Amino acid sequence: MSSQLGGRVVVPIDVKKKPSEQKLPLHNRWHPAIPPVAEVRTGELFRVEMVDFSGGGITKEYTAEDVKFADNSIVHYLSGPIRVVDTDGNPARPGDLLAVEICNLGPLPGDEWGFTAIFDRENGGGFLTDHFPCATKAIWYFEGIYAYSPHIPGVRFPGLTHPGIVGTAPSMELLNIWNERERELEETGLQTLKLCEVLHSRPLANLPSTKGCVLGKIKEGSLEWEKVAREAARTIPGRENGGNCDIKNLSRGSKVYLPVFVDGANLSTGDMHFSQGDGEVAFCGAIEMSGFLELKCEIIRDGMKKYLTPMGPTRLHVNPIFEIGPVEPRFSEWLVFEGISVDESGRQHYLDASVAYKRAVLNAIDYLSRFGYSKEQVYLLLSCCPCEGRISGIVDSPNAVATLAIPIAIFDQDIRPKIGSVPTGPRLVRNNPVLPQCTYDGNLPITKNPSASI
Amino acid sequence: MSSQLGGRVVVPIDVKKKPSEQKLPLHNRWHPAIPPVAEVRTGELFRVEMVDFSGGGITKEYTAEDVKFADNSIVHYLSGPIRVVDTDGNPARPGDLLAVEICNLGPLPGDEWGFTAIFDRENGGGFLTDHFPCATKAIWYFEGIYAYSPHIPGVRFPGLTHPGIVGTAPSMELLNIWNERERELEETGLQTLKLCEVLHSRPLANLPSTKGCVLGKIKEGSLEWEKVAREAARTIPGRENGGNCDIKNLSRGSKVYLPVFVDGANLSTGDMHFSQGDGEVAFCGAIEMSGFLELKCEIIRDGMKKYLTPMGPTRLHVNPIFEIGPVEPRFSEWLVFEGISVDESGRQHYLDASVAYKRAVLNAIDYLSRFGYSKEQVYLLLSCCPCEGRISGIVDSPNAVATLAIPIAIFDQDIRPKIGSVPTGPRLVRNNPVLPQCTYDGNLPITKNPSASI
Amino acid sequence: MSSQLGGRVVVPIDVKKKPSEQKLPLHNRWHPAIPPVAEVRTGELFRVEMVDFSGGGITKEYTAEDVKFADNSIVHYLSGPIRVVDTDGNPARPGDLLAVEICNLGPLPGDEWGFTAIFDRENGGGFLTDHFPCATKAIWYFEGIYAYSPHIPGVRFPGLTHPGIVGTAPSMELLNIWNERERELEETGLQTLKLCEVLHSRPLANLPSTKGCVLGKIKEGSLEWEKVAREAARTIPGRENGGNCDIKNLSRGSKVYLPVFVDGANLSTGDMHFSQGDGEVAFCGAIEMSGFLELKCEIIRDGMKKYLTPMGPTRLHVNPIFEIGPVEPRFSEWLVFEGISVDESGRQHYLDASVAYKRAVLNAIDYLSRFGYSKEQVYLLLSCCPCEGRISGIVDSPNAVATLAIPIAIFDQDIRPKIGSVPTGPRLVRNNPVLPQCTYDGNLPITKNPSASI
Amino acid sequence: MSSQLGGRVVVPIDVKKKPSEQKLPLHNRWHPAIPPVAEVRTGELFRVEMVDFSGGGITKEYTAEDVKFADNSIVHYLSGPIRVVDTDGNPARPGDLLAVEICNLGPLPGDEWGFTAIFDRENGGGFLTDHFPCATKAIWYFEGIYAYSPHIPGVRFPGLTHPGIVGTAPSMELLNIWNERERELEETGLQTLKLCEVLHSRPLANLPSTKGCVLGKIKEGSLEWEKVAREAARTIPGRENGGNCDIKNLSRGSKVYLPVFVDGANLSTGDMHFSQGDGEVAFCGAIEMSGFLELKCEIIRDGMKKYLTPMGPTRLHVNPIFEIGPVEPRFSEWLVFEGISVDESGRQHYLDASVAYKRAVLNAIDYLSRFGYSKEQVYLLLSCCPCEGRISGIVDSPNAVATLAIPIAIFDQDIRPKIGSVPTGPRLVRNNPVLPQCTYDGNLPITKNPSASI
Repeated sequence: MSSQLGGRVVVPIDVKKKPSEQKLPLHNRWHPAIPPVAEVRTGELFRVEMVDFSGGGITKEYTAEDVKFADNSIVHYLSGPIRVVDTDGNPARPGDLLAVEICNLGPLPGDEWGFTAIFDRENGGGFLTDHFPCATKAIWYFEGIYAYSPHIPGVRFPGLTHPGIVGTAPSMELLNIWNERERELEETGLQTLKLCEVLHSRPLANLPSTKGCVLGKIKEGSLEWEKVAREAARTIPGRENGGNCDIKNLSRGSKVYLPVFVDGANLSTGDMHFSQGDGEVAFCGAIEMSGFLELKCEIIRDGMKKYLTPMGPTRLHVNPIFEIGPVEPRFSEWLVFEGISVDESGRQHYLDASVAYKRAVLNAIDYLSRFGYSKEQVYLLLSCCPCEGRISGIVDSPNAVATLAIPIAIFDQDIRPKIGSVPTGPRLVRNNPVLPQCTYDGNLPITKNPSASI
Repeated sequence: MSSQLGGRVVVPIDVKKKPSEQKLPLHNRWHPAIPPVAEVRTGELFRVEMVDFSGGGITKEYTAEDVKFADNSIVHYLSGPIRVVDTDGNPARPGDLLAVEICNLGPLPGDEWGFTAIFDRENGGGFLTDHFPCATKAIWYFEGIYAYSPHIPGVRFPGLTHPGIVGTAPSMELLNIWNERERELEETGLQTLKLCEVLHSRPLANLPSTKGCVLGKIKEGSLEWEKVAREAARTIPGRENGGNCDIKNLSRGSKVYLPVFVDGANLSTGDMHFSQGDGEVAFCGAIEMSGFLELKCEIIRDGMKKYLTPMGPTRLHVNPIFEIGPVEPRFSEWLVFEGISVDESGRQHYLDASVAYKRAVLNAIDYLSRFGYSKEQVYLLLSCCPCEGRISGIVDSPNAVATLAIPIAIFDQDIRPKIGSVPTGPRLVRNNPVLPQCTYDGNLPITKNPSASI
Repeated sequence: MSSQLGGRVVVPIDVKKKPSEQKLPLHNRWHPAIPPVAEVRTGELFRVEMVDFSGGGITKEYTAEDVKFADNSIVHYLSGPIRVVDTDGNPARPGDLLAVEICNLGPLPGDEWGFTAIFDRENGGGFLTDHFPCATKAIWYFEGIYAYSPHIPGVRFPGLTHPGIVGTAPSMELLNIWNERERELEETGLQTLKLCEVLHSRPLANLPSTKGCVLGKIKEGSLEWEKVAREAARTIPGRENGGNCDIKNLSRGSKVYLPVFVDGANLSTGDMHFSQGDGEVAFCGAIEMSGFLELKCEIIRDGMKKYLTPMGPTRLHVNPIFEIGPVEPRFSEWLVFEGISVDESGRQHYLDASVAYKRAVLNAIDYLSRFGYSKEQVYLLLSCCPCEGRISGIVDSPNAVATLAIPIAIFDQDIRPKIGSVPTGPRLVRNNPVLPQCTYDGNLPITKNPSASI
Repeated sequence: MSSQLGGRVVVPIDVKKKPSEQKLPLHNRWHPAIPPVAEVRTGELFRVEMVDFSGGGITKEYTAEDVKFADNSIVHYLSGPIRVVDTDGNPARPGDLLAVEICNLGPLPGDEWGFTAIFDRENGGGFLTDHFPCATKAIWYFEGIYAYSPHIPGVRFPGLTHPGIVGTAPSMELLNIWNERERELEETGLQTLKLCEVLHSRPLANLPSTKGCVLGKIKEGSLEWEKVAREAARTIPGRENGGNCDIKNLSRGSKVYLPVFVDGANLSTGDMHFSQGDGEVAFCGAIEMSGFLELKCEIIRDGMKKYLTPMGPTRLHVNPIFEIGPVEPRFSEWLVFEGISVDESGRQHYLDASVAYKRAVLNAIDYLSRFGYSKEQVYLLLSCCPCEGRISGIVDSPNAVATLAIPIAIFDQDIRPKIGSVPTGPRLVRNNPVLPQCTYDGNLPITKNPSASI
């Protein structure tokens, strides 16, 4: 008989406290030297609690000031690392695969709300930052499985809740690979990478920085802290260790097969999302929240060799594998928007799925803005509702075709094209639907759709 | 009472005859001057039959010679154009939306087979042409809703059958826009477009060419033919008129809302796919077949203005909208492979979904090759089975994250990673699983995965 | 390479001819002596075509006269029997299991219509015959996967198409068991079976009768014909051999594991349904049509012993097993009506699922009649649309709880209860929605709902 | 801005305390005089916590003694009644419909386990009590969305969690109707109700009894208590007020439209099920647990007249309506067992869905017992896993056809019939799979399947 009912809490969070005041220290960088804060055994159900990615920096106030001046150096606050050992006490080892089952997840009790935001164009931006440069925020409240926002009336949807970040610690060898390739991009990218030019206003990469760095049990100010902080990778992109993959389908019942690079695997998690659309286009674009995970780990010994073929110059150039769980929200009717790799100026790009997806999202935004929404409201909505972003065609030169499928049932009006119908607004307008938004005071040019006034 | 049961056949095909011998002439270019071959009324159910995209050029023989030397100038043979009028006899007009419901579709009776192929690297190639340069072909047989191939044992799956191409005729203004932007790409692309460099061996664009041109009722050799052939757009990419969108979910019960650019709309269809994966990665990569569509049209007068916001310099820069139908194959278990925008050389690309998707596909191919398949077999399979290609993250600089989700149930072995399991081969090997393949005799370099032998 | 594309037609039907004029003779009884009309091998894809169950007796005319005076002695016209042999030519043998995969199915080309009918209370009746005693008919037209009826406006739905009847021939021993137990019911049923008393006006059983009997290759008037006709079982109920199971989910991609009782199995099929709700409550209650099946058989030698435990006095008291296929229509929103085992008079019945289901259906009919429909229209609709009838609770004495779940998307109006809304009628009224109906001229009492006028 | 995050707890439960020691008093009878313990407003999210139906009487010990001697007079402990008022403070009134949305639900934290049991044949029994008369119990542990049992190895499944009981208080008029009709059944049932004869060993009805009666705020021993206890209805059957409907699909996101019979509606809930199969065949047959509900109510004024047609002698003979929520576990492969209305003795019953469903369940039990399970293990499993029990045919005299569809994915072995395969046992055997079971010491005969040893 199991002596422990429910998952053992290995990382507790007190939502009333700051990140730095939590019982177990958090971290916001990837580095092999960050010591584990807890240990679990394979087969054991355990619970990890997490602050939201900003650690409370973005609040539930109805203002976007906190978004505009958000300190991006501190993202993402992660819980862990958690050392994983087998039932004999032997740790996961480099070369193993760590199978992590997400048995359950959700918001933290008493903290059932979240936010979706657009960063200012010169403070992080987002996928459409050249169109929507202003810091903007929507607050969402949770009613069990459903989320609604006073800032985006007429929609309510069940969340496809998931952790944005699940990852293992990199080895020094892997960390060096990351730092080198991202530094090279940052140094040469503006010259050599032209495709999504308008995105160049966004940071090309986020290299290690001691500013904002939080390293768990490593004491700030120590020599070790200085060394590690200068080396440790930012958590923004997904990489070989998993990390910030933002795979929206990684919900209840899913499994992640993560490569192990250090003894004990050193699993960290964070960036909980009540819901997110494929692409998370607004960047701070999921419904961001604090939350918990109930996890169970298995170790597949030598699993990297058995199951992962490295794709690149070293045996470390691998990617995790996932299995999708059985309880996603069920939608049967979808309206689909298409984009091809022709940009807003009319210029033809070559099989560029990013450009095609940008156009699909822009098409959807303009379409839905006819139903009583501002474009910023739709941008936020498509970023966080469970919409599907697909690469439909990637071979028919010169056009990549990307599609964005939106579940019709999330709206309280019928958003399909119809003969004779006149689009109307949302039926249910809660409170005061003024979207918190700041001005954009920067200097970068805004992309105008030359046909928008036709 | 309806006097006509079933759909009226407006374009019949005799599969024993060549494209040029069909009762109504086919066409393989987009041009407003190609005259309609049939007329339908709104609300009427009608049936269009189509040859496969190659018009029989690629055969059911177990050889890839026909693929290696395929004449790409003749693709795609389309049925139509079909003029659409309302119940009063007034045609669809520029500015209207044409709602086309796909009530049914399938292979032509007696012709229940298809092919999936990789073109030779220097004759069209495919998404992974730098890895797989050899002309290769698999033949599929249909058993009702299921397809199986003697060349890829151990898999059998229900098709998500759809037309690769549904489109309206462009106006001259739109046609000129296409030709200009694609010509500019072809002329300057090698210098300015660097992202998927290895893809540069593939044609950047396919500009109008009189070679292989088929123009329906316009008599070959006439003056008009010469003029139109020089102007008419190739059908390879999807564009503002729909066209070769290759959206795999456009199956039974779906609807397409197409912009109308010419009087009567001039609807054409073709490139039937018994099944296709998102991206259609092998290029000739769906299960290509002859087939039929049963369609029903409605006209939404002035629908372009009501529902489509142009995205670009003119009011013609629009894209169709789709609704997904209610009878897709139902899978509940998926294995998901991830790719980030780091290429095989280890180089970091900036938020490039195409590179990320390439890596996801390569990861999946190498993984599945451990279960008794050659990599070419998996490449073909992922190109044509109903797998989902998603843009999961497009904002976390510098890595785009793309995912490829494969339905587990299509295999007759359990392909999940498992503790202690040794991957085995497919249980059911039909006939002789030798994959028809040619040598690659060209001069372009092949991408090697430096870690493949680790 | 397969020499045969598509399924070999083993039983062809010419829809312009009468049942007695078809190329291969039909049959409408179960008897081991009815000789096979065709032979198939395991693994072979073959096609069986079928007339509708009435063999054209019920027509597409807009009248219910044909229903009122329908000759029930001739149902159901079946195609077959088909002898099944393995690849060595050895037939299926008693004790084997015959696995029949339904690879595809549909209406016959050119005959894309069907009917749903209520029989007159004294000519067969239906589940609610005491409420709805009049012969009534609706005609449905098929638009590919969709059906609509001019007699039931505002609904259109994708069919969950299936054969009502798939069965093997019984042995004489099994046939005798059937005839004995059904004779005993007919002789003693009125005294001993009280539960659904109102149903007693319907035939308790349909014993063998020479009237209307059709026996395939056995020549009518011969001595053998006389003998077989007096013994052969009617096809109305489902029994140990499968037969008229009316399992609506037995659609494309499904499999039936049928027990084999005679050499060759002697498979027969018929009673094609474009769509049916669980229970097929109106009796002639699916969308009845002619149609085709594409089948593939395997033989599991000794499968009855391996997989079926007889449940009853002999080793023949078994039932088939089924697997559901992967392409059912996908609905995500359902409105559910409940019934408990209290009848219309307020009388309490003991855990009677039939009474509970009757009440659930009556509740649904009265509810939907508020949205612009007559009760007969809803009765027909719930009989043929893909609604789910469930035994939700069967243990909470004294009430069985049955539920009827109706897909909301089949209606063109929102049928959910709503605050402040006034139910309206269907938006789309096609032609003249007069439901063809006859008078009831019989003497049996009609059940009145005493509260209907409250 | 919402001042309250998450649902306000209106009925708290301390799982370490007995039912009688809870902060707010529980009740286990239906009566209009039981006073509300809490009040909620429409639109407000609130949380109700509940003990398991037995109030801890059945424990997590590995013994079935507690089941054998269970005191059925105390079932079910309910939380409530909860008075519902609108935002102006006006209560729900008789004739209104109360729309209750289940926004979330689950086990109580720290109490993540449940039980499934078979009662002794002479202490409540179950659907198959004549076959399985012994008290038996399985304990289930929850790992997030999944349940597994050490007593039924090799299965693990996501729960379709729901409340067995959601109901409003009856008026005295309705209560009298219940008591009269159930008393009549108990007095005359053995003579008049013959269909499922073997079930007659079970209680025909459970009439009011003061024994075990718990009446919330009404003080035991008071005069009022005596009066109410003698009148109050047992909670075992579902009735007009909803109550113990055991509808397994009433999970997250569902809605119940309950008729209102008394001022304030007086909503009560309880009998939480982690999972249940249609029919809940073992009677104590769901995975029974303590749990919570997060609810939101709306009042549809005069909704009974608007939406419910009474079916019976008074305007109170109505039934609730339900809407199914969007996040049920997703299964795509089902194995289906069929039953016809012929009982184990071979006797023919007339269109009796209860007999047909009994046979379908018996068929499934015997089939699955070939895969390494005892029949009692399968009986428990089919009672609590998310299997679908359908009334497939209810008109084809004399056989009703019922089907039981079992999701294949819940097993860790392939349970489909296969050529050449030999069924094996479950792969994963946790701990000691000895099923806790007592002897049956009673005198009622046990039904033997005469063919079980063939």
